[in-house]
Amino acid sequence: MSEGRAIETIAVVGCGTVGASWTALFLSFGYDVIATDPSPSAEARLIAFVARATPQLEDLGHRETGSLTFKASLESAVAEADFIQENATENEAFKQDLLARIDRAARPDAIVASSTSALLRSRIVADCAHGARHIVAHPFNPPHLLPLVEIVGVDQDVIARACAFYRSVDRVPIVLKKEVPGHIANRLSSALYREAVYLVEQGIASVADIDAAISEGPGMRWSIMGPHMTYHLGGGEGGIAHYLDHLGPSQERRWATLGSPKLSEDVKAAIVAGVEAESNGRSIADLERQRDQLLVEILNLKSKVRS
Amino acid sequence: MSEGRAIETIAVVGCGTVGASWTALFLSFGYDVIATDPSPSAEARLIAFVARATPQLEDLGHRETGSLTFKASLESAVAEADFIQENATENEAFKQDLLARIDRAARPDAIVASSTSALLRSRIVADCAHGARHIVAHPFNPPHLLPLVEIVGVDQDVIARACAFYRSVDRVPIVLKKEVPGHIANRLSSALYREAVYLVEQGIASVADIDAAISEGPGMRWSIMGPHMTYHLGGGEGGIAHYLDHLGPSQERRWATLGSPKLSEDVKAAIVAGVEAESNGRSIADLERQRDQLLVEILNLKSKVRS
Repeated sequence: MSEGRAIETIAVVGCGTVGASWTALFLSFGYDVIATDPSPSAEARLIAFVARATPQLEDLGHRETGSLTFKASLESAVAEADFIQENATENEAFKQDLLARIDRAARPDAIVASSTSALLRSRIVADCAHGARHIVAHPFNPPHLLPLVEIVGVDQDVIARACAFYRSVDRVPIVLKKEVPGHIANRLSSALYREAVYLVEQGIASVADIDAAISEGPGMRWSIMGPHMTYHLGGGEGGIAHYLDHLGPSQERRWATLGSPKLSEDVKAAIVAGVEAESNGRSIADLERQRDQLLVEILNLKSKVRS
Repeated sequence: MSEGRAIETIAVVGCGTVGASWTALFLSFGYDVIATDPSPSAEARLIAFVARATPQLEDLGHRETGSLTFKASLESAVAEADFIQENATENEAFKQDLLARIDRAARPDAIVASSTSALLRSRIVADCAHGARHIVAHPFNPPHLLPLVEIVGVDQDVIARACAFYRSVDRVPIVLKKEVPGHIANRLSSALYREAVYLVEQGIASVADIDAAISEGPGMRWSIMGPHMTYHLGGGEGGIAHYLDHLGPSQERRWATLGSPKLSEDVKAAIVAGVEAESNGRSIADLERQRDQLLVEILNLKSKVRS
C-alpha cells in the first residue's frame, strides 16, 4: 500500500461507549470526526459523552477542537474518511458484513481499524476485497484515558501508519506478531481473573480482600511497569536473569497449584454479593467517576516522570 | 489469648530488603525497633536503607522517629518486644527452627509475624510451643510503600490485634480464611505471569510490548481497583451480575485458550533479552527510583481521593 494522504478526517462507526470515547479523544487532538450509528438515540448519547469526557481530556492537556458531524448513513460517513474506527457489536457474522460494507464504501487508501476485543482479524475481514488495509486496533476502557492500543495487521506499511496515527493522539500502540484470541491484555486479565474467581470458589478470602490484594499491592506496581519488568526488579542486582534462574522453579511450582474454577451459579452469586459489599453503597457512576479522576492524575504523573 | 499490652517496641528479625523496609516504616510511625541479623554487614546496610527510605516516608506524611537499636543476639532482640516481624530466608526447615527460637525467647503475649511469601504458616510454626500467637504477615515489595499485608492465622484475637497494628502504620491488612501456597497476591501475580511467559514462548509480541499491555492498560485500572470491581464497571448499568451472565461464558472460553508454558532455556533467554531491550540502558537502581517516586505520588493521590 502507498503512503496515503495525511490523516485529517476520521469516521467512527458505532457510537456506544467505545466509539464515543474514541470520538472525544480524536476531537481533542483536532481531528474532524464523522460519526455514524443506526440507533436513533446514538447522536444525543454521543454528544453527551463527548461533553463529559472533554474536561478530562483538557486536564490531560488535550485541548484542540475538531469538528463533529453525525451521519445516519454508514456509506456516506466513511466515504470521505482517511481513517475509520469501527466499534460495532462483538458478533463475527455481523462484523464481517459491516467491514465488507465499509471496505466497499471507503476510499482505497483509507485505513480501517476494528476495536474488536474478542474476534480474530483474519475472520472478520474475510469478505473484504481490500483486506490488507484492515487492522484490529483494540483499546482499553475508557479509550480516551487509557493509552493502550493493541494492533493486529498483515501489511507493515498500514501498521506503521496506524501506529503513527495512534501516537499522534497520545496512545501507546503495541503490535502483535501473530493474531491470538483476546489479543494480549485481555488474555493477561483473564488469566488473573481465573485465579481471582478460584479464590472465591475455594472460600480463601472475601471478594473485597481479593480485590485489595491487587489494588493495594501488585496492581500499584503494574500501573508503572509490566510483569516482566516487575520481576526484573524482583531479582535484586542480578535482575531478571537471576530471578528466572533462582525463582523460576518456584514460579513453575506455583503455576501447578493455580485453579481452574467454573462460573457456577453459586460462584457467581458469591461474587455478586461480594462486589455489593465492597461497593458499600457507591453507585457504578460514582465508582467510575472516582476511577477516571484517579486515571487522569496518574496519567499526568507518568507523563511528568517520563519527560 | 488475652488482649496483650499496647504495642510499643517491635523486633525486626532479618534485615534484608524486606526487614529493612519494615524497619523504616515502623520508625516513621514512632515505634521503637530492635533489629537483629547474623550478617556482619547487616547493621550498616540497615542504617543506609532507612536513610534512603525516610524521605519517601516523609513525603507520605509519616514523620515520627522511633529509636533504632541493633542487637547481634536474636534472643535478646526479641525478649522485650511487643511485636516481632520475622524476615529470614525462605527455607522451611530454617524458618521452623528460627520461629521456635523466637517462640522460646519472646514474652508470652508478644505476636510473632512472619513475612514469608511462599511457605505455609502451619508448617513453619510446627515446632513452636505457642503456635497460636504466630501469624503470616506477608507484605509486598517495597513494604514501606505498598500498603498490602496478607494475614494468615488461627487465633481471631491475635489476627484482630495484628490487623489493628498494621492499620496503625497505614497498611491495608487482608485476612485469608484458609492458608494456601503463595497466599493471594502472589497467586494472582503468578497467574498473570504464566500467560505473560506463554506470550513470549509463542512469539506473540516483544517483552516490552507485553509489559506495556499491562502498564498502559489494565495495570492502570488495577492500581485503583481489583479484578472483581473492574468487571463490575465493565458490566455497564447491570454491573457484575450482568457481566457474569453475559460475558462469563466468554471468560470461560478464553480461560480454555490460556497457555501452560515451560521456563525453558530458550524462553528464559528470550525474556532476558527482551527485558534488556525494554530497560534501554536504565539500571535497576534507576528503574527502582523511578518506580518508587511514582508509587509515593500515586499513594498520595489515592489517599487524597479517599479522604
